[in-house]
Amino acid sequence: MNFVVERNEILTRLEAVSGAAASKTVKPILSGINFSVKGESIVQLTATDLETAIKTEVKAKHIDGQDGFVVDAKVALEIVRNLPEGEIIFEIEETNLIIRAGKSRFTLPTMDPEEFPDVETTTGGVEFVVSVSAIELMIDRVIFCAARDEFMRNLNGVYWEFEGGFLRLVAADGFRMALAEERIDVSVDDHFLLTLKSMRDLQNSMKSAMSDEMKIVYDGSRVGFYFDGTEMVSKVVDAEFPDYKRVLPKSFKSRVRLYTSNLSDAVRRASIAARLGSDSIKLDIKDELLRIIARSPDHGEAIEEIEGKKEGDNLVIAFNPRFLSESLRKIDTEEVELNFVDSNSPLQINPIDVQGYTYIIMPIRLI
Amino acid sequence: MNFVVERNEILTRLEAVSGAAASKTVKPILSGINFSVKGESIVQLTATDLETAIKTEVKAKHIDGQDGFVVDAKVALEIVRNLPEGEIIFEIEETNLIIRAGKSRFTLPTMDPEEFPDVETTTGGVEFVVSVSAIELMIDRVIFCAARDEFMRNLNGVYWEFEGGFLRLVAADGFRMALAEERIDVSVDDHFLLTLKSMRDLQNSMKSAMSDEMKIVYDGSRVGFYFDGTEMVSKVVDAEFPDYKRVLPKSFKSRVRLYTSNLSDAVRRASIAARLGSDSIKLDIKDELLRIIARSPDHGEAIEEIEGKKEGDNLVIAFNPRFLSESLRKIDTEEVELNFVDSNSPLQINPIDVQGYTYIIMPIRLI
Repeated sequence: MNFVVERNEILTRLEAVSGAAASKTVKPILSGINFSVKGESIVQLTATDLETAIKTEVKAKHIDGQDGFVVDAKVALEIVRNLPEGEIIFEIEETNLIIRAGKSRFTLPTMDPEEFPDVETTTGGVEFVVSVSAIELMIDRVIFCAARDEFMRNLNGVYWEFEGGFLRLVAADGFRMALAEERIDVSVDDHFLLTLKSMRDLQNSMKSAMSDEMKIVYDGSRVGFYFDGTEMVSKVVDAEFPDYKRVLPKSFKSRVRLYTSNLSDAVRRASIAARLGSDSIKLDIKDELLRIIARSPDHGEAIEEIEGKKEGDNLVIAFNPRFLSESLRKIDTEEVELNFVDSNSPLQINPIDVQGYTYIIMPIRLI
Repeated sequence: MNFVVERNEILTRLEAVSGAAASKTVKPILSGINFSVKGESIVQLTATDLETAIKTEVKAKHIDGQDGFVVDAKVALEIVRNLPEGEIIFEIEETNLIIRAGKSRFTLPTMDPEEFPDVETTTGGVEFVVSVSAIELMIDRVIFCAARDEFMRNLNGVYWEFEGGFLRLVAADGFRMALAEERIDVSVDDHFLLTLKSMRDLQNSMKSAMSDEMKIVYDGSRVGFYFDGTEMVSKVVDAEFPDYKRVLPKSFKSRVRLYTSNLSDAVRRASIAARLGSDSIKLDIKDELLRIIARSPDHGEAIEEIEGKKEGDNLVIAFNPRFLSESLRKIDTEEVELNFVDSNSPLQINPIDVQGYTYIIMPIRLI
C-alpha cells in the first residue's frame, strides 16, 4: 500500500502507539508498527508488546493497494519527527518502505504483517464512559506514588476501582499512597490493577486525543480504553492490590492549614540539610506555628518556620522530605491541609475546598 | 565576621567560584569557599582545587568582625539558590555559620580559614586585555572539539596562542579541530594550554561578569584572568599541543556554499540511518547538488538532496555525522562553506563573510 499523510498528523499518531511497541524483544515483529488500510482514507497503526496493544488511525490521501506492512517503531517515529511540516509519501517497493518528503528519501526494511499478532477488542464485562482530561489528571495525581520495582507486582501499577458510582485510582509503594476519585455513571462495582508501563502507555496515547470522551471496557482479564479513533487494550495484573481503605485514617487529632507554596519551599530548603543526613525532616507543630527541622552531620541544621491555622493537639512527627515534596507538587490549590493522628500514624494531605484526591504518607519513627 | 547581602548578588558570586572548589578530595578544606573581609563593604569569596583558583567579591552591609571562615561550597550554593529574593544574614556563632533569611535558618559547620591554601595573583610575563564577551564566544566555538579523555593530556583542553597581534584558541580530539581567533593588542608571541576543567570554570565564572573588560596575565606556569572583581588563576598543562597549523589545508579543490539550516537538518535526518550502521554518512557532491547518503543494515537507507553553489571538482567523501552536526550548530551565519581537498583529506567548514572561526573534520576512509 502507498499513501500520503500530513507530517504533524502521523507524528502524533506514531507517538501515541509507539510506546506499546516492545523495545527489547526476542520477537523483532513486536518492535514494529503494523500499518494497515482501514477505509477509503484511513490508515490504521497498531503496536503491541503482547501485554498492551494500541491501535490508532490517521487520515491519509491517495491510498493505493490493500497490503499492509510492519516497520520498526522507533526508526519510523524518529524519521517522521525529523521531517519538516508538510506532506509525507509512504510507498512500498518490494519489501522496503520508502518515506519521501521534500528532498529527503528514506528506505526502510519492512516485516511481514502476517506475523504481527492479532489484537482483539474487549467486549462484554463492565463498560463506562469517562472524560479523557479527567482520566489524565487522575493518573497524573497518583502515578508517582506507585512502586518502581517491577518485582513488587501488586504495587508496580495503578489500581482502578469502580464502586458506588465512583471511579477511584490508587497507587502506593509501601511508604505512601495516592488516591484520586471521580463520579462516573456505572452501577456495577468492580476493580482491576494495571502495570505502571500500561499506565504510561495510556498517558502517552491520550496526548493525541482530540475529543474528550473515553469508553473503558473491562472483560475480567483485559481492559480496553477507546477514544477518538484510538484503542488501547491491556492485560490486567494477576496480583492483589492491598486493602487501601485500611490505610486511610478514620479520624484526626490535629489539622494544620497552610499556603501550599510556603510549605513546599520550606520542605525543599530543609531537605538540603536532610539529604546527606538521616533523610528525614521533623515537623514540630505547636499552636499556630509549624517548624520544620532537619539535621545532618556535615550539612548542619535547617530550621524553617511557617505560620498556619491549627486545630487540635500539638505534635512532633518526621517524614522523608521527598515524599512530602512530590505530593505537594500535585496539590493545585493555594492552600493545603495536613491531617495528623499521632507521631506514628500516617499523615493525610488534602487540597482545600476541593474533593477528589488525597495523599497518605507514613511517618519515620522518631528515636 | 557577620554580614548582610542581597540573595541575588551573592548567588551569582557563589556560582562563579564554586566550580573551582574540589568535589571529591582527600583535603576537605578544598571543597570549601573561603569567606574573608576585603574592605568596608566587600566580602571576598575564594575557592580552589590547587589547579585552578577563583576569587570574587560581593557587596555586603553591616560587616562586623574581621575573622574569615570556610564553608562547604556545594551546600552554601544550594542553600542560597533555594532562598527567596531579599536580604540574607550570615552570622558566625562559635564554629558554626548561621544563614538566615525570612523565616529560614541554616546552621553550617565551618572549617578553619588558616588551613585554606594561599592563592597568589600572577604578575609579570605576558599581559593583554580582551573583551569578556569575545572570550566567551571564542571558548564556546572551540571547547566542544576538545578530547574528553583526561589521559589525553595534550588534547583534553584548549590551546591559547597569541601571535602577530592575534589571540587564537584551538581545540582538537584527533578527529576534528576547532579554531577561533580575535585581534588583540599584544606585541609578544607566546602560548599555553589549559585543561578542559579550567576552561569550564572560566566559562562559569564569566557568567557573573557585569563589565566587559578582562585582563589576561601569563607568567610562564600560570594564567590569570581578571575581570569585574573576579580573578581566576589556573596552572597551565605541562604537555605539548600538536602543531595545529600542519592540519590546516593549504589549498582546496572544491568548495560548496549552502544554507546552514538545510545542511544541518539533512545531516540530522541522514544520521538516523547512520546511527546503528557504520556511523558514517557519505557526501556526494556533483555539480550543483550535494547528496547525503547513509545506510545501515536494520535502519535502511537515507538520501538527502541539497542544492548549493559549487566551485571546483566533483567529490565523494564520508564523515561521522555527529562531528558535522556539532560544528554546524556553532556556525551562526545563514550560509556555510564546505572546503574540500579530496576524499582522504580534512574538510574545512567556514561561516560565510565572517572571519574568526573555522572547523576541520577528518573524513572516514571509503572502502
